[in-house]
Amino acid sequence: MSAEPAPFIKPEGLLAHWQGHRRLTRRVIDAFPDEQLFIFSVSGMRPFGELTMEILTMAAPMVEGAASGDWKSPRGREPRPKREMLRLWDESTEQLHALWPQIPPQRFLEPLTAFGQYTDTLRNLILYVIDNEIHHRGQGYVYLRALGIDPPAFYDRS
Amino acid sequence: MSAEPAPFIKPEGLLAHWQGHRRLTRRVIDAFPDEQLFIFSVSGMRPFGELTMEILTMAAPMVEGAASGDWKSPRGREPRPKREMLRLWDESTEQLHALWPQIPPQRFLEPLTAFGQYTDTLRNLILYVIDNEIHHRGQGYVYLRALGIDPPAFYDRS
Repeated sequence: MSAEPAPFIKPEGLLAHWQGHRRLTRRVIDAFPDEQLFIFSVSGMRPFGELTMEILTMAAPMVEGAASGDWKSPRGREPRPKREMLRLWDESTEQLHALWPQIPPQRFLEPLTAFGQYTDTLRNLILYVIDNEIHHRGQGYVYLRALGIDPPAFYDRS
Repeated sequence: MSAEPAPFIKPEGLLAHWQGHRRLTRRVIDAFPDEQLFIFSVSGMRPFGELTMEILTMAAPMVEGAASGDWKSPRGREPRPKREMLRLWDESTEQLHALWPQIPPQRFLEPLTAFGQYTDTLRNLILYVIDNEIHHRGQGYVYLRALGIDPPAFYDRS
């Protein structure tokens, strides 16, 4: 019997949880009409395409930096067609699957500086990226409703 | 050296993370004009007061059920003044602090049925409650913008 108390969640469980959220976010991207993705918003907020580009520039680059110590400058956030957004999303999903197991488990509890400017434990940095995705996706739900489109079910992460 | 790999997060870390989110959600509740909390919404969605009541009926009752096995029927979700919402919120925060340490750590990985109907590991049930709060709070940010009010900073959990 280990002297350590049981964890709330282990690294592989957290990745599975995150990928479930990412499957839902992909459905939200796909629910937008292509011509509205980088245009429509409510009250001058950023359109959902811009929010999605923010998520893309945070997720895989964070995990790549954590795994390798190589912090790449995030790519541009210019508008692009929905099919290209979904392609980038799927590419990012594969990168997370490949890179996550390369992070030594003890590193999650260590402080580091991400992208040369954000200093915290890796765990908190990754939770921030996931929470930010959920936060902006919730905003996307309002945009979809305002467009008269039913968003996908929040509880479905399949 | 333990044979177990390092956790991503331990129970006490998860509670601290959740309470940080709850401090932000409290500021979002407080940012709404009292007379709009249960009235204003975008495109027929539920007003933020109703979303807040949903969060209140999920959070402390889930942790109480997990700690004690006693699943209380959630209280009503009727509209009430903002000061009463904030009082319920603070009461709920204290309950989480008191009840969380009473959950045996290994229970987080065990399946259970919450409120007689939701069966999953306790860990996933709790993550759902937190994620649902972040999701609806993100919608509250859009409502605030639509009301011409600047929402609190997402990154500030103090």
